[in-house]
Amino acid sequence: MKLADFDAWMRSELDAVERALERWVPTDAPAGLGLAMRYGVLDGGKRVRPLLVLAAAQAVHGNQDAAMRAACAVELIHAYSLVHDDMPCMDNDILRRGKPTVHVRYGEAQAMLAGDAMQALAFEVLTPCANSLTALPGPHGVPPALQARLCALLARAAGHAGMAGGQAIDLVSIGRPLDERTLRDMHHRKTGALLQASVLMGAACGTTTPAAWQALSEYGDAIGLAFQVVDDILDVTQESETLGKTAGKDASDNKPTYVTVLGLDAARRHAAELRDTALAALARSGLAQAAWLSLLADKIVERDS
Amino acid sequence: MKLADFDAWMRSELDAVERALERWVPTDAPAGLGLAMRYGVLDGGKRVRPLLVLAAAQAVHGNQDAAMRAACAVELIHAYSLVHDDMPCMDNDILRRGKPTVHVRYGEAQAMLAGDAMQALAFEVLTPCANSLTALPGPHGVPPALQARLCALLARAAGHAGMAGGQAIDLVSIGRPLDERTLRDMHHRKTGALLQASVLMGAACGTTTPAAWQALSEYGDAIGLAFQVVDDILDVTQESETLGKTAGKDASDNKPTYVTVLGLDAARRHAAELRDTALAALARSGLAQAAWLSLLADKIVERDS
Repeated sequence: MKLADFDAWMRSELDAVERALERWVPTDAPAGLGLAMRYGVLDGGKRVRPLLVLAAAQAVHGNQDAAMRAACAVELIHAYSLVHDDMPCMDNDILRRGKPTVHVRYGEAQAMLAGDAMQALAFEVLTPCANSLTALPGPHGVPPALQARLCALLARAAGHAGMAGGQAIDLVSIGRPLDERTLRDMHHRKTGALLQASVLMGAACGTTTPAAWQALSEYGDAIGLAFQVVDDILDVTQESETLGKTAGKDASDNKPTYVTVLGLDAARRHAAELRDTALAALARSGLAQAAWLSLLADKIVERDS
Repeated sequence: MKLADFDAWMRSELDAVERALERWVPTDAPAGLGLAMRYGVLDGGKRVRPLLVLAAAQAVHGNQDAAMRAACAVELIHAYSLVHDDMPCMDNDILRRGKPTVHVRYGEAQAMLAGDAMQALAFEVLTPCANSLTALPGPHGVPPALQARLCALLARAAGHAGMAGGQAIDLVSIGRPLDERTLRDMHHRKTGALLQASVLMGAACGTTTPAAWQALSEYGDAIGLAFQVVDDILDVTQESETLGKTAGKDASDNKPTYVTVLGLDAARRHAAELRDTALAALARSGLAQAAWLSLLADKIVERDS
């Protein structure tokens, strides 16, 4: 019963996210830039981050316009990071979401620009106002203080202390043995920060007690790490076709992962522990409507792609 | 007298901008990322955009904390665009601000990440709150509505409709003849949007009438284009040593410029006309304290590097 409701909720929210991205990612950006941006973010991806935003927003009865904007903004940041990460000077990957990567399709220069423009677009989406660059602010459904709060959370999760910082650690870690603590720090930033920010941006759309905010922060932290542990497991247990990206890439790139550091069985146990940690934090949040967040934790750990 | 005051004002503001950037661009970002970011933005550059922000803010008696944040944020966006623009897949330039470019010094992957993190940092700087990724907002000196407004202006100027869009046009224009209208559209986005946004972000820090806002918008538009016309002129009339970047690059890259489209003399006349347009708009603004904006217009057109 609850699982069927959850599936229906997910389908409906995923539809809404696709429609919103379809509207906000420009068709008319000049010289092919819009095409490359749309290619990089539309019609693909599991949309885990948008679902976390929307589930958290629902748990706190949040502003729905703001939540949908936050959902699309985190997905834009995630998608831009994949576009840049796939480029030859980084991971040099040619397959993503089952399609040729953006630089393979549109060239490296356009891929870099598309990523850059997607990051800027995330902050545009979070700050609705009159369309013109120069017009005075017009009416919209997201209070300015909430816009600012969402920008603050997203910028910090995307930047040097978060995702970009984690990628820098990743860059220097290739071929080096890492202990679990350093690996955790890398993933906490590289993947965890944006997943945690997704939960908190959703929570920011409504009203929470400091205790509930803290609990959601801990939920986001655990689920963010769990996501990466499962990613590392799938990289060795699944085929490229299932993943929609090149499987076995970490091993062939000689990258440290939870599987190389802990071993496959211990990595699986660790993912299950992190799910339990996330669910315990959720229980402490005291939020009555946290069922979707709880089921998303299961989904993140039990996914097969 | 006024010119001496202007020079003193500039020196004092430029010092303050350097100190603020020094504080806000991280020393502790992991794995060398902070070093690459600092290399890309500190100790160099004419800081034209910060000066425009601060002069506009002074003209409207704007919030000074907000204005300094806006000044550093636009410079971070400008600096990140140079880091990415210099990379081998774009302009492939090795000299910038008299030093090896970021990718020459730190490698392509780190340069791309540093640029990405600098863009995120711009939005962090605009949204001051407690340091932690997850803390609830704390007290600061910039009202949230102003934070949101500054993010909105900056994101739109940096993104597909502004700077990134202009660079996409630039990318497909190499080796093609452009008419003046297309060239103007490219530069209006590529360089003009961020210069105009600098003026408007400064103006947003205070209170303006719609008429004054419109006049400042027109001033920013004219001065933004004038800046690029002068850039094109300097590219053919100055040595690399004076410019701190590779001179004659446009011609060797077979890029259309105001000099190739209009000729050198007509380009010079056009720059002077644009300055007059800017000053006329400023006069219409009705702002009593617009002297620094007026002198900045002169400086932009008369500069030799």
